[in-house]
Amino acid sequence: MENGKPVKLVLPEVKNPIFIEGYPGIGLVGHIAANFLARELEMEMIGYVESPFIPPMALILEGRPNPPLRFYGRDNVIVAVADIYVPPTLVNEIARELVGYLRDMNARKIISMGGIGIGFFKENTEVWGVGAREELNRELEEKGVKILQYGSIMGMSGKLLWEASRNGLDAYVLLGETFGDRPDPRAAANVIEALKKLTGIEVSTEPLLQEARAIEEQLRRMHEQMEQARQRAEKQYESIYL
Amino acid sequence: MENGKPVKLVLPEVKNPIFIEGYPGIGLVGHIAANFLARELEMEMIGYVESPFIPPMALILEGRPNPPLRFYGRDNVIVAVADIYVPPTLVNEIARELVGYLRDMNARKIISMGGIGIGFFKENTEVWGVGAREELNRELEEKGVKILQYGSIMGMSGKLLWEASRNGLDAYVLLGETFGDRPDPRAAANVIEALKKLTGIEVSTEPLLQEARAIEEQLRRMHEQMEQARQRAEKQYESIYL
Amino acid sequence: MENGKPVKLVLPEVKNPIFIEGYPGIGLVGHIAANFLARELEMEMIGYVESPFIPPMALILEGRPNPPLRFYGRDNVIVAVADIYVPPTLVNEIARELVGYLRDMNARKIISMGGIGIGFFKENTEVWGVGAREELNRELEEKGVKILQYGSIMGMSGKLLWEASRNGLDAYVLLGETFGDRPDPRAAANVIEALKKLTGIEVSTEPLLQEARAIEEQLRRMHEQMEQARQRAEKQYESIYL
Amino acid sequence: MENGKPVKLVLPEVKNPIFIEGYPGIGLVGHIAANFLARELEMEMIGYVESPFIPPMALILEGRPNPPLRFYGRDNVIVAVADIYVPPTLVNEIARELVGYLRDMNARKIISMGGIGIGFFKENTEVWGVGAREELNRELEEKGVKILQYGSIMGMSGKLLWEASRNGLDAYVLLGETFGDRPDPRAAANVIEALKKLTGIEVSTEPLLQEARAIEEQLRRMHEQMEQARQRAEKQYESIYL
Amino acid sequence: MENGKPVKLVLPEVKNPIFIEGYPGIGLVGHIAANFLARELEMEMIGYVESPFIPPMALILEGRPNPPLRFYGRDNVIVAVADIYVPPTLVNEIARELVGYLRDMNARKIISMGGIGIGFFKENTEVWGVGAREELNRELEEKGVKILQYGSIMGMSGKLLWEASRNGLDAYVLLGETFGDRPDPRAAANVIEALKKLTGIEVSTEPLLQEARAIEEQLRRMHEQMEQARQRAEKQYESIYL
Repeated sequence: MENGKPVKLVLPEVKNPIFIEGYPGIGLVGHIAANFLARELEMEMIGYVESPFIPPMALILEGRPNPPLRFYGRDNVIVAVADIYVPPTLVNEIARELVGYLRDMNARKIISMGGIGIGFFKENTEVWGVGAREELNRELEEKGVKILQYGSIMGMSGKLLWEASRNGLDAYVLLGETFGDRPDPRAAANVIEALKKLTGIEVSTEPLLQEARAIEEQLRRMHEQMEQARQRAEKQYESIYL
Repeated sequence: MENGKPVKLVLPEVKNPIFIEGYPGIGLVGHIAANFLARELEMEMIGYVESPFIPPMALILEGRPNPPLRFYGRDNVIVAVADIYVPPTLVNEIARELVGYLRDMNARKIISMGGIGIGFFKENTEVWGVGAREELNRELEEKGVKILQYGSIMGMSGKLLWEASRNGLDAYVLLGETFGDRPDPRAAANVIEALKKLTGIEVSTEPLLQEARAIEEQLRRMHEQMEQARQRAEKQYESIYL
Repeated sequence: MENGKPVKLVLPEVKNPIFIEGYPGIGLVGHIAANFLARELEMEMIGYVESPFIPPMALILEGRPNPPLRFYGRDNVIVAVADIYVPPTLVNEIARELVGYLRDMNARKIISMGGIGIGFFKENTEVWGVGAREELNRELEEKGVKILQYGSIMGMSGKLLWEASRNGLDAYVLLGETFGDRPDPRAAANVIEALKKLTGIEVSTEPLLQEARAIEEQLRRMHEQMEQARQRAEKQYESIYL
Repeated sequence: MENGKPVKLVLPEVKNPIFIEGYPGIGLVGHIAANFLARELEMEMIGYVESPFIPPMALILEGRPNPPLRFYGRDNVIVAVADIYVPPTLVNEIARELVGYLRDMNARKIISMGGIGIGFFKENTEVWGVGAREELNRELEEKGVKILQYGSIMGMSGKLLWEASRNGLDAYVLLGETFGDRPDPRAAANVIEALKKLTGIEVSTEPLLQEARAIEEQLRRMHEQMEQARQRAEKQYESIYL
Repeated sequence: MENGKPVKLVLPEVKNPIFIEGYPGIGLVGHIAANFLARELEMEMIGYVESPFIPPMALILEGRPNPPLRFYGRDNVIVAVADIYVPPTLVNEIARELVGYLRDMNARKIISMGGIGIGFFKENTEVWGVGAREELNRELEEKGVKILQYGSIMGMSGKLLWEASRNGLDAYVLLGETFGDRPDPRAAANVIEALKKLTGIEVSTEPLLQEARAIEEQLRRMHEQMEQARQRAEKQYESIYL
């Protein structure tokens, strides 16, 4: 806080950026999606958030130290990633700095990625979204995103959407349906598919879907074994008493 | 807190406004009434409160992002709405900024809407009120409002009443009698009826009363079923032992 | 905190005032006494304490809004009243502002009223006191007040006594003996009797004593009924077993 | 905090003072010793610590109000006394102000008094000490004080020792051995005996030792009674079963 | 906070220093190693950290007072030691000041020492490490240190690594494998062996290994006794029932 500011953004000038945010939230959907994009698009870490209120730590990735709140970049795409839960007041301060930067850089699109908890399983999980203004909602609908008419969006995604919208920036939130109690790579893949249509970014979500299938397969086997065990137990029970 | 102020009011100049406040409180009376007015009078969101101490979030209404503390306006009427509980120190800071604004704008009337918990059911619930000075109490009485002689009014309504009163502004609090343990659209309707007489605003509270009747009908049926179940149980009991 | 000060005193110039403080404490003795004085002497509210750290609220008295920490005045007498518990740091800040004011106004006498818990009942409860310096103690003794030689006085009364004393002002604390577990109008009456001798203020404490007798009568009846019930139970018990 | 400083020292200029500190700690050793010195040497209160973070209160001693953190003085001796527990950050701020003062006044000696908990009883309790530098340790040894080679000294005593030592001042800590679970006037007497040798101050510790003997006598009688009761119980038990 | 800074570094100019940090953490590995180095290399205390947020205390070592966060030095080697747990925000502030100093002094190497909890016992415990950039990792590998590819390093070690790395300084973290539930001198010895290769510092870790063997021998004996007791109990059990 050398100059009294609780938060400082260290980020190079990137003109007309597409800014993509994936801070941790329900199902870690945004977190998984943002890290996946940074890795698959072979992005470099180009910046970070500095604040005495962020816990002291280094994240070691591929043998190199990284700060917990950081930005990856390539061409005009910036991806914002957090490896820790960020407390409310800090979110507010970071959002304000970010929107100032994005306004100055004349951002093309600001897209927050996250999950929306539905609490049950569903064959085809969908992506919900909302934009800063009516036209952006129509754009989302054209891309197959369902429009969230009523609800509240907490944390960085909600704050960024509102702050960007009142600054006249083109901001969107994309929320992948997720059960809600575990990390969900399939919901992340769904969100990225919507993002691809919205931005023209090209990336295959196949690795995420494989990961999802592996997790689902494991869950299916666990359920089968439990079912078989239950049936065996039932039979044993019958053979004893009948 | 760019300039050290914990709260900033973003609100256009509205000359001689009628300012109506409905922050959340007992029975959500003020909250229901304020949102109802904004919707029925087809008001636009014209401003909001900005502060790093407000939780980061966007409220999605009709597919558009909104800040949690906001103002709706039409002609010279302003309605203040909050979708979150506002902590005491923040209430104080917002109230001070608001009263400064209302003094500068030469406000015609400042009306806080809320509930007063009575803890029992009553055929005809009434509206209690108090004004910034004796004459305003007489005006309230003429409109059929019962004058609160002793008591304390907590939160934004109380603070606004006192701050406005010491600035020589015409401030009123209207409190609808409510049981106190559930959202109460009937109390909100009662408060709006009083508000209409006080301000000349025209709006039908029929939709609120319908909502109230639906809730009350549901409660009545629930009670009947419980009574019938009790009587059946009693008869069964008798047929066994007699 | 427009100018960085956590507390602002809004109070007109009153030359050579007699300042009487009755913030809430044990047995609510000071609180009862101060409110009684303001009412019986038909004083006007002449000022209040302003701070973002005071809870937002309005106190409605006789149909008019009042701030929770306020001053009543008439001629050169000022009575300080609080309707809420005031946290320690706020007490310190208010006390400092008050003593600055009282020094500037050249206060004649500063009298804090409160209770002293004795934890048992006593036929004739007394008033203990202490002054800012030896001579004031002698003055108190002449008026029938017992001098507190050792002890600690917490809260506004203690702070005001010390701050006033180190500024060379004539400060006194009057503490009425009280059981300690309930509001005690008799202790308040005792304190006011001592205050009358000290200041020449004329007021009858008969209304407080009536209130005290009513409470005591109620307690006496409750005890009698319990005693009779106990005796009846004992007799029944004897008639069964003997 | 008129000027932003959380602590203000109100203390007259005393050239080449011997400064003695006795804030509350284990066995209240320092507290008892410091108050005893102030009383027996008939010192006057000459100053105090002012801070909004000290609880609002007045300490009544001999019918006069006193602040909870204060200084007694006579000739060039200053004794620092506290009647409340002082929180860590406040200790740091007071220590810094104090050392600034003591450096400006060119203090001859700074002596902190306290206890060292040993958790068992001992015929001849001793005094441990440590000085700001090697030569002061030799001086302490010559006066019969055992040198504390390893350990940590918490609170005002530790802070004052370190802060004084890094300012080149002659600082000492004297710690009387004490059981640790009760106020210990004997440990206080031991510490004062060491202090007398170190400073040339003359005072009889006989009153403290009398107080100690009275407490010890009371404890001894309690133990005897318990022992007798135990033996009686044992005999009864034997007479029944043998 | 005389000048508003929460932390002040008191440290002489040491050109091109090798800076070694060993704040407390898992297995107290860094703490043990740092204190061992300071003692064995016969270093002097040359500086310390000053802050009102560090608890007031003096650490007595060899009869002399020391501050809890301090620096030892000899030639161009500086060792940073802490005797208390340092809260996150303070770590951030200290790290920033330290990196500023190390940049100004043109530090040769910055080495953080700590432990890495493995939760099981192992014949040959190893040392993991990571450097500020790829080349430093290769240097570590050449010295027999295993490279930490993924993970998070909390506290001063992590913060220092990241802050130094973004300032282009040669920073390393060395983490000795440790069970994790007790102080581990063997892990400390392992870390120092790696440090020796990295810095050319010469010191025998035999004393640490002796300490480790003593602890291990004690644990082994405890286990044997428990095993024998178990076998005796088993035999007794058999002799009764067979």
